[in-house]
Amino acid sequence: MIQTPYLLFLGDAPDQLAAKVAQGIKDWRPENAVGQLRMEGCGADLGIRDMSLEDAQAAGAKTLVIGVANRGGYISKAWKEVLVKALQMGFDIASGLHNLLRDEDELVAAARVNGRTLFDVRIPSVAYPIANGVKRTGKRCLAIGTDCSVGKMYTGLAMDAEMQRRGMKSTFRPTGQTGILITGGGVPLDAVIADFMAGAVEYLTPDNDPDHWDHLEGQGSLFHVSYSGVTMALIHGGQPDALVLAHEPTRTHMRGLPDYALPSLEDLRDTALPMARIANPACQVVGISVNTQKLSDAEAADCLARIEDRMGLPTVDTFRYGAGRLVDALQAI
Amino acid sequence: MIQTPYLLFLGDAPDQLAAKVAQGIKDWRPENAVGQLRMEGCGADLGIRDMSLEDAQAAGAKTLVIGVANRGGYISKAWKEVLVKALQMGFDIASGLHNLLRDEDELVAAARVNGRTLFDVRIPSVAYPIANGVKRTGKRCLAIGTDCSVGKMYTGLAMDAEMQRRGMKSTFRPTGQTGILITGGGVPLDAVIADFMAGAVEYLTPDNDPDHWDHLEGQGSLFHVSYSGVTMALIHGGQPDALVLAHEPTRTHMRGLPDYALPSLEDLRDTALPMARIANPACQVVGISVNTQKLSDAEAADCLARIEDRMGLPTVDTFRYGAGRLVDALQAI
Repeated sequence: MIQTPYLLFLGDAPDQLAAKVAQGIKDWRPENAVGQLRMEGCGADLGIRDMSLEDAQAAGAKTLVIGVANRGGYISKAWKEVLVKALQMGFDIASGLHNLLRDEDELVAAARVNGRTLFDVRIPSVAYPIANGVKRTGKRCLAIGTDCSVGKMYTGLAMDAEMQRRGMKSTFRPTGQTGILITGGGVPLDAVIADFMAGAVEYLTPDNDPDHWDHLEGQGSLFHVSYSGVTMALIHGGQPDALVLAHEPTRTHMRGLPDYALPSLEDLRDTALPMARIANPACQVVGISVNTQKLSDAEAADCLARIEDRMGLPTVDTFRYGAGRLVDALQAI
Repeated sequence: MIQTPYLLFLGDAPDQLAAKVAQGIKDWRPENAVGQLRMEGCGADLGIRDMSLEDAQAAGAKTLVIGVANRGGYISKAWKEVLVKALQMGFDIASGLHNLLRDEDELVAAARVNGRTLFDVRIPSVAYPIANGVKRTGKRCLAIGTDCSVGKMYTGLAMDAEMQRRGMKSTFRPTGQTGILITGGGVPLDAVIADFMAGAVEYLTPDNDPDHWDHLEGQGSLFHVSYSGVTMALIHGGQPDALVLAHEPTRTHMRGLPDYALPSLEDLRDTALPMARIANPACQVVGISVNTQKLSDAEAADCLARIEDRMGLPTVDTFRYGAGRLVDALQAI
């Protein structure tokens, strides 16, 4: 686990979008972020306190989290000065960048000398077991998509937050870099060795109280030929009690695959549910999460109503309207 | 690619079963094996010429292949003497052992000094791409199982051999250690990083002549929760034109999973075919390969007849009766 709270490093992020990871932490775990550190030329602002390394340390920050995508795929000299100083002061550093902290000799040396840890959250740090398929106690919910990047992580985080508000027992279980940085732990599933994928998911969602819900972050799509194996491992390793179908209604083809049409929500339901029931015969599809970001308010309301009517399941945009109805559906199981 | 022909190293294999990999090479690519090297106490015998390293080199062998599972999971001192001498004489060494050649300092040093290569075929040696899903030319056949270890590799090798006999264009495409050692190349799919599984399968089965068949070695099972993600990646990366259902009729539960029943062949067909048609809408289930090893001749004949009658598809045991009827079915596509 990465130690919290964090100082969020925005570096010289050109715009708000480049600081997406930091934004996710601020939105979902504001208590994890004591402040932001912005360098000259930074075009992003999370609206939280600007802090120097010294300010953040005084405020209790343990880890500097790189909350930004870097330009050109390398860690610049300007960044490195800040990062080395942070290590010298006693911060750990966590990053989800493609280029790894551990490949930067100066950072490795500074971490070693100062007894600090570099967390490259894209790389597994655990030797996961092979899945054993044994039924676990507690309940699990998984969002599965008609495509990649349709709002599965957001859906899981929103359902977890709603359960927390209701005083229910609930944990968000990240399977990607952003989710891992938001919560401080998880499994970078797309970087796990094939034989251990399902075992990594079992490891991530262990036995729990009978009334506890894990919200397992979805990845890929059973219908996305590049990543369907990862989705399959989530379904079988996660042995979910509940599936939420996730969809983006304006997508014209599968992400990155211009020749592949999206499946219908019916196709997704009819494909995923039998697969899920291999690992958990009691699994149900409980609701639908639609990302209506590209629609107007009126269009979104209309889109949700039509899908709900067609599918006979609670259908929401968790960003616009919250996850209350999906949590109601889980409570009814 | 591993250089052929091989000298097959049986070491001190306690019995024939421990020499399964060497047996596979001798059965399927006898032209790849100039002889066998057996040490004192070896209880296995492939029935081919016993050779010293010197004999094998004189006979043209390029690579010493460790065709045996070693005891206790380590490479013994007695083995190491032979392996170091082989490297000094100019052999490469190839191994599918769990404990890697590259982790043995003496072997690494001897390989370096003598300019030889150590092939650990369990470990990918290529940075595979992410799958792009683009339709490829040529045809592909994939055996998919009701369970793991039901004869998928054997089925693929038998169909390839039958096509070769008929003068058809055909290649067996290994996805596991034994298959890779048999043919000299392939993808160790269970050791590939999750995000690149389907891409590795695309890499393994590239564009080819319109009348060429790839026989892609199957792995796992869509119904085996430990490995179903690997199977999924094979189906979507391989974009097969034809599926062969593989089955072992005496299995009482999924391999290693006592709480999981086997699916019926109907379940397998109805689950796998829609998934395969995402990547290749023309995909068909063409036949059934049943491993009747544990049945008498009469029981086997009866079992095959019943399944064929029930499923309406050519149903064979390729070991007992050859793959002719499966190849007939592919020719009819």
